Amino acid sequence: MNILRRKSTKLLLASVLLAGLSTVSFAKEKVYTWKLATTWGPTLSPFIDAPQNMAKMVEEMSNGRLIIKIDAANKHKSAFGVFDMVKGGQYDMAHTASYYWKGKDANLLPLTTMPFGMTAPEQYAWFYQGGGMELMQKAYAPHKMLSFPGGNTGNQMGGWFKKEIKALDDLKGLKMRIPGFAGEVMAKLGLAVTNIAPGELYTSLERGALDALEWVGPGMDIKMGFHKIAPFYYTGWHEPSTELQYLVNEKKFSKLPKDLQEILLTAMRVSAYDMYIQNYAMSADAWSKIATEYPNIKIKTFPKEVMDAIKKANAEVVAGYTKANPLLKEIVDSQNAFQKKARQWTIMSDYLYLKDNLE
Amino acid sequence: MNILRRKSTKLLLASVLLAGLSTVSFAKEKVYTWKLATTWGPTLSPFIDAPQNMAKMVEEMSNGRLIIKIDAANKHKSAFGVFDMVKGGQYDMAHTASYYWKGKDANLLPLTTMPFGMTAPEQYAWFYQGGGMELMQKAYAPHKMLSFPGGNTGNQMGGWFKKEIKALDDLKGLKMRIPGFAGEVMAKLGLAVTNIAPGELYTSLERGALDALEWVGPGMDIKMGFHKIAPFYYTGWHEPSTELQYLVNEKKFSKLPKDLQEILLTAMRVSAYDMYIQNYAMSADAWSKIATEYPNIKIKTFPKEVMDAIKKANAEVVAGYTKANPLLKEIVDSQNAFQKKARQWTIMSDYLYLKDNLE
Repeated sequence: MNILRRKSTKLLLASVLLAGLSTVSFAKEKVYTWKLATTWGPTLSPFIDAPQNMAKMVEEMSNGRLIIKIDAANKHKSAFGVFDMVKGGQYDMAHTASYYWKGKDANLLPLTTMPFGMTAPEQYAWFYQGGGMELMQKAYAPHKMLSFPGGNTGNQMGGWFKKEIKALDDLKGLKMRIPGFAGEVMAKLGLAVTNIAPGELYTSLERGALDALEWVGPGMDIKMGFHKIAPFYYTGWHEPSTELQYLVNEKKFSKLPKDLQEILLTAMRVSAYDMYIQNYAMSADAWSKIATEYPNIKIKTFPKEVMDAIKKANAEVVAGYTKANPLLKEIVDSQNAFQKKARQWTIMSDYLYLKDNLE
Repeated sequence: MNILRRKSTKLLLASVLLAGLSTVSFAKEKVYTWKLATTWGPTLSPFIDAPQNMAKMVEEMSNGRLIIKIDAANKHKSAFGVFDMVKGGQYDMAHTASYYWKGKDANLLPLTTMPFGMTAPEQYAWFYQGGGMELMQKAYAPHKMLSFPGGNTGNQMGGWFKKEIKALDDLKGLKMRIPGFAGEVMAKLGLAVTNIAPGELYTSLERGALDALEWVGPGMDIKMGFHKIAPFYYTGWHEPSTELQYLVNEKKFSKLPKDLQEILLTAMRVSAYDMYIQNYAMSADAWSKIATEYPNIKIKTFPKEVMDAIKKANAEVVAGYTKANPLLKEIVDSQNAFQKKARQWTIMSDYLYLKDNLE
């Protein structure tokens, strides 16, 4: 086909010369070059793989008519500026997560994940079959942006702890890195919640500036090395299915031809699912490696007393947000109603199947 | 854009006339029309939705250059002839399931699901990150077909039973509709395994020609009405994540331009994930409705004695197949190794999260 394409282009050029028109043939083959900014650095796999795979699919499917250039955070120097850069049109789109923007617009908070919320298939079902996409567009409309799922981490682990948590009192004064919404919850339980730059986490944990921290899950944690110095790995509660987001400048999107819009939408959609699956495999591999090399590490769940206190504190923090923001309340109510229904199915299908087949 | 496109086509025609060439411009805008045959009827949602959504995406992304026409089983009259029709080139592609072809080629059996096998995310991770796709192409290569995931049902329920199964003896002589591989397993336990056409299942169960049957899960079972006459709904073991398949005639695929190949591959991939999510939502909705309207229905798991006997019989049936088919053994070994690793992650993530949050 390449040869035919080249011949055809020559013909088009010939026709342009003959007809004395200079725009029509280019309109047909017009190349759109877009810029995408990520909140992540250029090597943070699998987060960065999602937009990279998306851009590759778009280029191949569009036969080079839509090119998406990716600037990672090391390039644009503003990990948490991508929202404003897409809103302002300096970038056409971003790959990030909605819950980072709760300070700008609280309504965006629940679109990534919520503590004690849905699992990944439950959440995708909410987005695509349960009204979630409509609510996400409603929340982003004031910012003149569109938003789409951008990849799921699945269940995130509760964190690496140097000492076992046997009772609620063990949490009092515990120095933990746990940012965002979950950090607000843990602070209510008396933890000293701190935020420390990723590059300093290992040393802080090693030297005692931190007693505990949460990152993501085995697939991403393994490179950080926390398993070498904190032997208690707690199961998750705060991010049961973290869905990243693509943000797209609405005006720029509206200027794409219909077929390129469809190509972009489809590539974003599949790249999100694919990242979920990629991270699933990465976590399976990484945990297998960690468990083999560090057999002293124990998987723990918090005692009931602790979980109950976390749930109570979480309900209070959520109530503070829903009270102040009607649209946030509408989103959380929609999620809770969907989760209640979907969870019944999850329990009678995957959960009971897994329970019956524990080795 | 439509106006510009029309103008451009006119220009191309002009150039063809001027240059005295009649093929080049058509090569550029050539429309490929494909035919897809499904194993299902035209209303079997969500199975039929996957190829329908796929064809729609392909048409939109290709701007009408690749049109896929779908013939459901009522049209081509040969639900189980689609394999041969794609192999022989009467159809370009099919939407079906690999395990239907175990009689033609046993190596294709494990590519849909295996009893006591992987959950849906585990299985997608095996396909896309664990070597599954390579093994699937290897298994289909002798048939000159390519194969791709076509949509997942998630965990299928173990079936509707009129009487509770309290002991292994309760299964002896039980008349059950459970086709395929799982039927072979259940026959070893002394069940009278029968196959009955879908349209006659309800009446057979009502009149006692059947004591039990399995179909899919609440989302698809609800239309069949089994819940009205069989109050025990058993959890699944035999199809923990049934992935349907697209089959594509290899030669036809190789003749598509590269961009249309990418469009087709991407649309198939996303339609498969989407069907999994669609069915998840359908099952959540349907179970909520059934549980409300028929509160007498009980979700049951088989007693340990029964599960152990099923596992033993299953291992024997699998061993019979692996002994006779080296490639099937290679596929099953790959699945088992991946499952062993991935299941550890599933347990410490979703399973323990769900366990900690049972209401």
